[in-house]
Amino acid sequence: MTEILPNFIKNRALLTPDREAIVFNKESLTFKELYEKAYYRAGLLTAFGVKDTDYVGFLIKSDLETVLHLFAMQIIGAKAVLLNNRLTANEMTFQLTDANATFLITEDHFQETARQLAEELKISVYYKEGIEDRSYIEPIEKEQFSLADTCTIMYTSGTTGLPKGVIQSYGNHWWSAIGNTLNAGLYEKETWLCAVPLFHISGFSILMRSVIYGMKIVLHDGFNEHKVLQDIREERVTIVSVVTTMLERIEQATNEKFPAYFRYMLLGGGPATVELITRCINKGIRVYYSYGMTETSSQIVTLSPEDSIRKIGSAGKALFPAQLKIVNDLGEVLGPNEVGEIKVCGPNVSQGYLNKENHLKDGWFFTGDIGYIDSEGFLYVLDRRSDLIISGGENVYPAEVEAVLSEMEGIKEAAVIGIPDNQWGQVPVAFVVVDGSVLSEKSIMKNCEKSLAKYKIPKRVFFVSELPRNASGKIVRRNLREWVEEQKDF
Amino acid sequence: MTEILPNFIKNRALLTPDREAIVFNKESLTFKELYEKAYYRAGLLTAFGVKDTDYVGFLIKSDLETVLHLFAMQIIGAKAVLLNNRLTANEMTFQLTDANATFLITEDHFQETARQLAEELKISVYYKEGIEDRSYIEPIEKEQFSLADTCTIMYTSGTTGLPKGVIQSYGNHWWSAIGNTLNAGLYEKETWLCAVPLFHISGFSILMRSVIYGMKIVLHDGFNEHKVLQDIREERVTIVSVVTTMLERIEQATNEKFPAYFRYMLLGGGPATVELITRCINKGIRVYYSYGMTETSSQIVTLSPEDSIRKIGSAGKALFPAQLKIVNDLGEVLGPNEVGEIKVCGPNVSQGYLNKENHLKDGWFFTGDIGYIDSEGFLYVLDRRSDLIISGGENVYPAEVEAVLSEMEGIKEAAVIGIPDNQWGQVPVAFVVVDGSVLSEKSIMKNCEKSLAKYKIPKRVFFVSELPRNASGKIVRRNLREWVEEQKDF
Repeated sequence: MTEILPNFIKNRALLTPDREAIVFNKESLTFKELYEKAYYRAGLLTAFGVKDTDYVGFLIKSDLETVLHLFAMQIIGAKAVLLNNRLTANEMTFQLTDANATFLITEDHFQETARQLAEELKISVYYKEGIEDRSYIEPIEKEQFSLADTCTIMYTSGTTGLPKGVIQSYGNHWWSAIGNTLNAGLYEKETWLCAVPLFHISGFSILMRSVIYGMKIVLHDGFNEHKVLQDIREERVTIVSVVTTMLERIEQATNEKFPAYFRYMLLGGGPATVELITRCINKGIRVYYSYGMTETSSQIVTLSPEDSIRKIGSAGKALFPAQLKIVNDLGEVLGPNEVGEIKVCGPNVSQGYLNKENHLKDGWFFTGDIGYIDSEGFLYVLDRRSDLIISGGENVYPAEVEAVLSEMEGIKEAAVIGIPDNQWGQVPVAFVVVDGSVLSEKSIMKNCEKSLAKYKIPKRVFFVSELPRNASGKIVRRNLREWVEEQKDF
Repeated sequence: MTEILPNFIKNRALLTPDREAIVFNKESLTFKELYEKAYYRAGLLTAFGVKDTDYVGFLIKSDLETVLHLFAMQIIGAKAVLLNNRLTANEMTFQLTDANATFLITEDHFQETARQLAEELKISVYYKEGIEDRSYIEPIEKEQFSLADTCTIMYTSGTTGLPKGVIQSYGNHWWSAIGNTLNAGLYEKETWLCAVPLFHISGFSILMRSVIYGMKIVLHDGFNEHKVLQDIREERVTIVSVVTTMLERIEQATNEKFPAYFRYMLLGGGPATVELITRCINKGIRVYYSYGMTETSSQIVTLSPEDSIRKIGSAGKALFPAQLKIVNDLGEVLGPNEVGEIKVCGPNVSQGYLNKENHLKDGWFFTGDIGYIDSEGFLYVLDRRSDLIISGGENVYPAEVEAVLSEMEGIKEAAVIGIPDNQWGQVPVAFVVVDGSVLSEKSIMKNCEKSLAKYKIPKRVFFVSELPRNASGKIVRRNLREWVEEQKDF
């Protein structure tokens, strides 16, 4: 029997009304205020026509008004389709169409894109600004959730290149939050700083933890290491979610020891070097390295407090409610230190993609990532989805970029790999085989802008006569990587 | 879909093998050791014939060997029927028969009772002592649980007087543990002192929290306030579960301020006076007053940290996953400050009693307790199950005692109420109407010993010509209470 739980935000406001819930640009709300303001916005959305069965696109930045509208969705039980705001209009069109979204909630900043989407999709656009002029109808509040109810949709591309809408239920978010607590504890006056995007699971999961734990969030509208360091002291922050590039910049920006109440950096979104983690430890910054993805509703494997130094470089062990195994190509479970594909299961794992057949095998999700588990049970991730590129915390799927390149006039075929980059961790570069036309690196990059978010556009394009392929015709990306490494002047 | 979780004790040993799990009489085990020793006992039980489908009676005291055998049960997935060791053999016979128990796990101390039970019930008796001489068969380990699987059976009597076996699933225990954490937090090096019986939900729930949280338990084989105070310092205890009489004695036994790492006393099992809680606060002892019962797998309503002083006397609000309402006789939900019956629901609430029809109404459990919720949402419990007597943390159901008295030769009818007692909080006293025979108070008490645990035996028996009844023939216990209060020389 799927569990029924009281509506998270409503219940939290009932339990700890006067506790501080969120701070954004010095504006602070208690849980009671957060709930009441979200409830009011639920009324505005209701008057706008949004019902519990609707899928509603969110094209937003991180601010208080966004948070209030996201919780308003939960009050009426409507489903939020969170768009990465760095995508192109074409990419968004695909996702909103696939999700059959009937509304788009956005803000003035994205007016131009929103107008384009409205025209193409016949979707109603609601602007966060000017809410005082909107009409209000008492919302039909969801008193409780079944944990199987859909809460959010976030798109990932996977190896096929075509974005798939990950269905995240209230239960997925709930169990993710509980798994985190059982690993890292939950302190009185816990305060989590969110400088990662709310449209990512990294940011959105902090919102969910806030109402489940009764925990204060310090929300930033973007990442600035100096502002992070300042708020750690001024707002007594205990936890910060970071990706490698953010951690690097925070570590570089300070020489002071962190205050004793600061608990840890939750590091996700791709590998960090042992060297960086060591530097952090030397400055008294505890780092919990973790492994997770949109399909696992945030971290699923995290290093425990007591192992964070001894097992440096490992992603840790599965969170309590989850399970983890390494399998070979035949699906057979491998032993300690044997390298294979990482498969995971647990109540935080998404049960499926929108409009797709069930992708789980006996409840297990095959991540496509490569790694091994040592004799003590610690996971080491060697390669994310074999060819996944993580650039500044964003996922770039080679297959998606390759598809765009291959469709360009004059290009016969293309391959994309990630190469190390000091600023972004990794950046994509492309190898193309032309059909005889005359093409320039610049014109190809320019051409990509229509279809690809900026972070997905190759930073370099190399022209080659053919792509290295193995016997079965698959591109051998390893060879391309080696070739790039050999280019001294790159 | 009911969630599947990895076997708690096995998973905990995998996640934090070297963390301290339990201390008993200066002997300490890590989670790895706890698991390995429990696993070994699972093999002994397997050789003894215990299978996952079996219901196994536990007639035990609180010690390390008991804990190991309780976890051994979870390794093979067999169900533990936890007997209150203060019951008479007759009472135990009823429970073991009702549960269709095929085995009894006990210890030398209870040999006499065990022999009696073995004779009557044709049950196989396993003694905790001398395990080195037992044969061993590799156990079939349960790798994972469905949260709907039955973990334990504990008997309560309710108002009918006949004991009912409360079915507690792994999910009930899990959600109870999670609800506690979301209210009270979870700290690194959390340490919970257990001086309440393991056969009660108060003690057993600490065992479950230990493996779910990865938390150390300090186990005592009985309650001694001086030993509690000593271990709070020596073992750096952060939490102690107490009933009112225990809290009273702890408070009386110390004049020192509690150490800063000590977090709180979790107070359950009946009302405490505001005066006692105030005395504790003055000594720096934080008390979280809570309300719960066997059917809710421990606390379901608890006072939050920030309200523990401001709302003194209240049991608090429902734990996050649970819900709470006050209803009148017609089942209609009442408003703030209106007195009625307390009903609760949530994933920690037992789904039923053994061999009984489902007792929930639309998922709600009607507690029989009387109380009200104030305008801020805080519960005040006025009367436990209207006539339930709580004596030293043990439940005494008047109906059960009345049934025993009424069956005695010479007694026409009987009524039992609880009266205030300095040592035990409350004690039962009886009123009997005789049929013309000559009976003495002493002989009646003596007669009770066969069928009733000592704490259930009336401390006084009053002879009356008739019992006060209302129009519909129900005994008016209030009148009996008033009558006792008027007796100056009582």
